[in-house]
Amino acid sequence: MTTRRTIIDGETRFIDRLTGVFPIPPHRRNAIHTADAELVELPPASGGTPPRLLALTTDTVAEEIASGLYTDPYQAGWVAAMASLSDLAAVAADPLGLLLAETIPPGYPERGLQKLQAGIADACATSGTWVLGGDTGIGAALSITTTAVGLVPAGRFLTRRGAKPGDALFSTGRLGRGNGYALAALGGGPDTPFPGGYYPRAKLREGSIVGEVASACMDTSDGVFATLDQLGSLNGVGFEITERWEGTIDDAAITAAGRRGLPPWFLLAGCHGEFELLFCVRPSRLDALRERAQAAGWRPVEVGVVTAEPGVRLTVDGRRVLFDTARLRAEAWRPGAGIGDILGAFIAYDTELKEGE
Amino acid sequence: MTTRRTIIDGETRFIDRLTGVFPIPPHRRNAIHTADAELVELPPASGGTPPRLLALTTDTVAEEIASGLYTDPYQAGWVAAMASLSDLAAVAADPLGLLLAETIPPGYPERGLQKLQAGIADACATSGTWVLGGDTGIGAALSITTTAVGLVPAGRFLTRRGAKPGDALFSTGRLGRGNGYALAALGGGPDTPFPGGYYPRAKLREGSIVGEVASACMDTSDGVFATLDQLGSLNGVGFEITERWEGTIDDAAITAAGRRGLPPWFLLAGCHGEFELLFCVRPSRLDALRERAQAAGWRPVEVGVVTAEPGVRLTVDGRRVLFDTARLRAEAWRPGAGIGDILGAFIAYDTELKEGE
Repeated sequence: MTTRRTIIDGETRFIDRLTGVFPIPPHRRNAIHTADAELVELPPASGGTPPRLLALTTDTVAEEIASGLYTDPYQAGWVAAMASLSDLAAVAADPLGLLLAETIPPGYPERGLQKLQAGIADACATSGTWVLGGDTGIGAALSITTTAVGLVPAGRFLTRRGAKPGDALFSTGRLGRGNGYALAALGGGPDTPFPGGYYPRAKLREGSIVGEVASACMDTSDGVFATLDQLGSLNGVGFEITERWEGTIDDAAITAAGRRGLPPWFLLAGCHGEFELLFCVRPSRLDALRERAQAAGWRPVEVGVVTAEPGVRLTVDGRRVLFDTARLRAEAWRPGAGIGDILGAFIAYDTELKEGE
Repeated sequence: MTTRRTIIDGETRFIDRLTGVFPIPPHRRNAIHTADAELVELPPASGGTPPRLLALTTDTVAEEIASGLYTDPYQAGWVAAMASLSDLAAVAADPLGLLLAETIPPGYPERGLQKLQAGIADACATSGTWVLGGDTGIGAALSITTTAVGLVPAGRFLTRRGAKPGDALFSTGRLGRGNGYALAALGGGPDTPFPGGYYPRAKLREGSIVGEVASACMDTSDGVFATLDQLGSLNGVGFEITERWEGTIDDAAITAAGRRGLPPWFLLAGCHGEFELLFCVRPSRLDALRERAQAAGWRPVEVGVVTAEPGVRLTVDGRRVLFDTARLRAEAWRPGAGIGDILGAFIAYDTELKEGE
């Protein structure tokens, strides 16, 4: 999502400026930036039942298509649907469905449109949810905005806030697949390490369990370092990544990086995330996580621990390194930067790391 | 909304083809095309309270900006917010708020952005609602997608379906203002009959009353004839428009048409609607409407009656004319047609009417 988000250097400041004019909704239970989806309290029904929380999120996939990241309309549709559903997963909401707003270039082939719709339909079916409605218009470039609506089960309230030093850090699955795919798609040859394509899945089922046990959660759609940087800054904490962190990385992504001679940490630093959930768990809740995950046949990936010290520490070439995730995040989201620029900035950072030895 | 919807010649067929791949959501209470917003049943809360209905709708404003209809970003923001809120009004929902998905061209002036946001904020404040969240990205052309979320009060279920011959046809206010504004903005000189600009309001307050008394309702955002054509075909009915229908038309719109020498019926036929609600009321509910409207200080506009015969009949030059609204709707939404083409088609139709005398 490089190009789409390139406006968002100093992303938080930019959004603050754009949204500063909007009064804070009294029925929104999260503050801005603090949850993957907005958590909106419904007015209580008659009968004295407790109020319920809607989860609402909207996301546009356009620049990822323009940049050539998704050339197949089926894949573009699939990812567009999953992007919003992943935000619901990160707040442990049960999806009610999606609304679509599609902008289609004049003369766009009917067959391409049908593939696009099929990708959306299949992503919804896989996620056990529905397209509820939408709007279709014409415009210069293909653009798909998906709005996902969900309901948060009573008693749950999962946001990006709540992590404390000593919490364990987990992922729903292996990391770096989004950046690995971007490396292969935007710069690789025909011999891709993603022969089956790239069809990330919103982790809704896992999200339900995460909602029962986690202190904080965020999806990795902007990349792992960006996610950790945001979680760290919102909670005033840092992260110590597990010694054997390369085992948490997706195999095909490692292959894609290796083919270009790039170190595996690039897969955490790039802005093309996947839709895993990174979540923190208090030591007292670890047994509950293990129990529920096992019952669901799911194996959470141990990623590290939450530390009082800010920053993200991981071992690179046998040495413990404090990564400047704020700087790397800014590089990855720099206005106007293409994949070459971003890789250049990462290579420069890697050189600094080595010179610092 | 000509350009944006030009893809939608045979709009219904096109949408059917695009949405045919999506299974029908079991919890959506309306069929496709039959309501201005999707009506989605929430799973019942514990405690045996009856299920509640969410109202959901999404709308993109992009081509109206590209075509020069809205040159002021404040106005574009205002209309974008009102477009979705008007769909909530037409199903008598109380708004919970809006989500925004904005695509901003690179280098778009910060001051323009601030005006855009202010227009959205003011439209929400005027409507007693809130911006709940959103997504911002970069793209070639300015595009604003608003998704409105509302809750339908218990017992209400207002859609486009339910009109019967003998029902009275009303509007929440005077008609034709959208097309009048488009005539002035896209082809008029500097001496506009809209000196205060064009800031249509979603008729939410009126919609609450309409929801208590009406048999069917639809907003006029695609133009009055398009609305009547849709209501007529969904209900297997037609409309007899009141003899003195020119009194139902907005004054500034009449002026705009008059300056170009165009007959007032063009203001009903064009595709640039306003956000009035057209609604049908059974004779037995007319007293209830009058009573509630009077208490609210609102005066519904009498537009005509619902007939068993299909088609729309109104008096033009002292003669009762059956308008082919399906044909005029197709002309207004013809792919690639600009305002000149559409006016040309209407003028040809007007000539046919006169030759038929």
